[in-house]
Amino acid sequence: MTLRRADCEALDRADPLRPVRERFALPPGVIYLDGNSLGAMPKAAHERVNAALGQWSGDLISGWNIHGWIDLHERVGAKIGRLIGAEAGETIAGDSTSINLFKLLAAALQLNPKRRVVLSERDNFPTDLYIAEGLIRHLGQGHELRLAAPDEIADEITDDVAVVMLTHVNYRTGRMYDMAALTAAAQARGALTLWDLAHSAGAVPVDLAAANADFALGCGYKFLNGGPGAPAFLYAARRHHAAMQPVLTGWFGHAAPFAFEPSWRPADGIVKLAVGTPPILGLAALEAGVDLMLEASMAELRCKSLKQAEVFAALMAQEVGGFGFQSASPDDPAMRGSQLCFQHENGWPIMRALISRNVIGDFRSPGILRFGFTPLYLGFTELWDAVATLRDIMAAKSWDRPEHHARARVT
Amino acid sequence: MTLRRADCEALDRADPLRPVRERFALPPGVIYLDGNSLGAMPKAAHERVNAALGQWSGDLISGWNIHGWIDLHERVGAKIGRLIGAEAGETIAGDSTSINLFKLLAAALQLNPKRRVVLSERDNFPTDLYIAEGLIRHLGQGHELRLAAPDEIADEITDDVAVVMLTHVNYRTGRMYDMAALTAAAQARGALTLWDLAHSAGAVPVDLAAANADFALGCGYKFLNGGPGAPAFLYAARRHHAAMQPVLTGWFGHAAPFAFEPSWRPADGIVKLAVGTPPILGLAALEAGVDLMLEASMAELRCKSLKQAEVFAALMAQEVGGFGFQSASPDDPAMRGSQLCFQHENGWPIMRALISRNVIGDFRSPGILRFGFTPLYLGFTELWDAVATLRDIMAAKSWDRPEHHARARVT
Repeated sequence: MTLRRADCEALDRADPLRPVRERFALPPGVIYLDGNSLGAMPKAAHERVNAALGQWSGDLISGWNIHGWIDLHERVGAKIGRLIGAEAGETIAGDSTSINLFKLLAAALQLNPKRRVVLSERDNFPTDLYIAEGLIRHLGQGHELRLAAPDEIADEITDDVAVVMLTHVNYRTGRMYDMAALTAAAQARGALTLWDLAHSAGAVPVDLAAANADFALGCGYKFLNGGPGAPAFLYAARRHHAAMQPVLTGWFGHAAPFAFEPSWRPADGIVKLAVGTPPILGLAALEAGVDLMLEASMAELRCKSLKQAEVFAALMAQEVGGFGFQSASPDDPAMRGSQLCFQHENGWPIMRALISRNVIGDFRSPGILRFGFTPLYLGFTELWDAVATLRDIMAAKSWDRPEHHARARVT
Repeated sequence: MTLRRADCEALDRADPLRPVRERFALPPGVIYLDGNSLGAMPKAAHERVNAALGQWSGDLISGWNIHGWIDLHERVGAKIGRLIGAEAGETIAGDSTSINLFKLLAAALQLNPKRRVVLSERDNFPTDLYIAEGLIRHLGQGHELRLAAPDEIADEITDDVAVVMLTHVNYRTGRMYDMAALTAAAQARGALTLWDLAHSAGAVPVDLAAANADFALGCGYKFLNGGPGAPAFLYAARRHHAAMQPVLTGWFGHAAPFAFEPSWRPADGIVKLAVGTPPILGLAALEAGVDLMLEASMAELRCKSLKQAEVFAALMAQEVGGFGFQSASPDDPAMRGSQLCFQHENGWPIMRALISRNVIGDFRSPGILRFGFTPLYLGFTELWDAVATLRDIMAAKSWDRPEHHARARVT
């Protein structure tokens, strides 16, 4: 059955999440399929950040107490925890994704001291592998970063694996691991698990408690819509809190930061993994994004995300089926995050041509066009228009025109 | 000679920095002597942060290129470098002070591998000591954190000292080290130096190049007026860049972050010490503060700061000389940062009473009232009014009234 633009319009009219789009400040005329790189701005972020500026200018140092800046990282972290099935007191926000990975990987290795292998995926997001490399070299205890293909991970969890460190949804292909099954497999073989939720939090249902996950972390600026370079978050299961010995022992992880005691003494619980002074402007913006996400149900978001992927895949087959695009994402929707990827030998100039026509997707080597679905603010008719634009580009071979190259910008 | 309020008014009229005060958004009726905890908000910070929000909402992912977010941490870092006598390419902004201390101390220990002692001051700001403790425990190579009194530091630089790690201006007393002399002494004995400039950058003249300093770092939210929890900064002398091996090896420290190479490969120069995605909102606010600071000359700022300390000390002697306040700062202005401290057995309730009357200073155990001078926005008449308020409180013994306790808020 042919999909028409009117069908997409009908899907938009029936979409219960459609009104949420009005809560975002979106540029007119842009079809944004890259919310998995940088989420759009909730209008409330503008209000919250300006409120924080007013608190700073008006109340100066007292803001730390009056406005609760002092534990804003705990409050925002707790809200993120509700999106990912953490229990209260198992999450905090702050620092970058990379720094948080360092904290948790160091903690995990220390909790599993007789083993020397960090097992990860060969195509994991590079900064995760980089951080593991740096930590291993620094430890100087003969640890090894062992890399495998996604399908091989389960078999590679041998008796020497201390930590299975995986990104739940692959940044390039959108492939999603079965978190509960792999966590159980790892734990059955004496390994701990560390999940990077950068492309999961706010994108797919995550239940860390149900999966019995050990450690997790994620990014604030993708599906959580926290703004460019937003603070990240981390999670540690409560059963590990007492034994965790942080490496980054800053004053905000101290049991009494303002007692100015001479030696570091860990705060109770997850807070011991906090380090420096919390970044208030960044946390204010992130909180707006998280609050908006909490208003929707994750089941509803996932339902729309899957429908959007289905429609987009169908439109790609219907409209540009003869132009050499190969699906680079898993076929099974249950094994996918909130994105679809297609490989094409001219992927790079094609994406530049799309961007020059205000259809914003992302390009990832080799030749992969990545389209992210953000159900809070993306409509079905936009999917139609995006693929129609792609069809026009392919039909006219206009991606081959150099004028696009200067106009287009891809990060 | 008695100082009158009219004398302070005359000093304000003659103050070349007086117009700069209008560039800050300050609450009416508040005398703010705590800019060394959290600097006031430049009006430009409001504009810059809102501009960044507009860039985010309007340009989405393209903002990283269009608006130069991608190297904002380098640009803001370079501007801070100009305030502290660093050369181009020796500073970056980002992460927290604590995280940056960790990065640099780890780098310094690795560069001086045969020695095992980190020498610091017993009354150093606690998070510096905490971070050193955590790093040393994590290294597990028998390093020792050795603490001494300020006057003993030079003599304690023995043959086993790898790094002399000091805060240039003490957070509590305002005591300032002779950076050039101590750096020379340390280097003569084979040690490296690591300077925390939290209470120096923007407060006193710092010339890292002239002092031949090895490493330094500092805070964005004090004298640089970058906002609550602003990004911090770090410095490494160019001669160390090639040999430095970062521990926190994130993608923004990679030579080609967007090539997604499988292994970490250091960026050239100071950028190898960057880690995660730069925090754009925080950097936008910090840049406003730094730009304002760069408009004034550090010599002019220091001149006014010293005069303010002189006036404040004279007023304290004149107005509350009989009430038991003991100076807790060095007498020699050349050995002081931009603050004065006084010890009093009732320091805590007295500071609460001052704050309840809108004279905002800071309290630090034991019994220390801390008054910071921020020449960009603090007037001489305010100093008069602050001490007059203190005199009224002491004369009426009104600090002893419990109603102040609930109203006052001290961080």
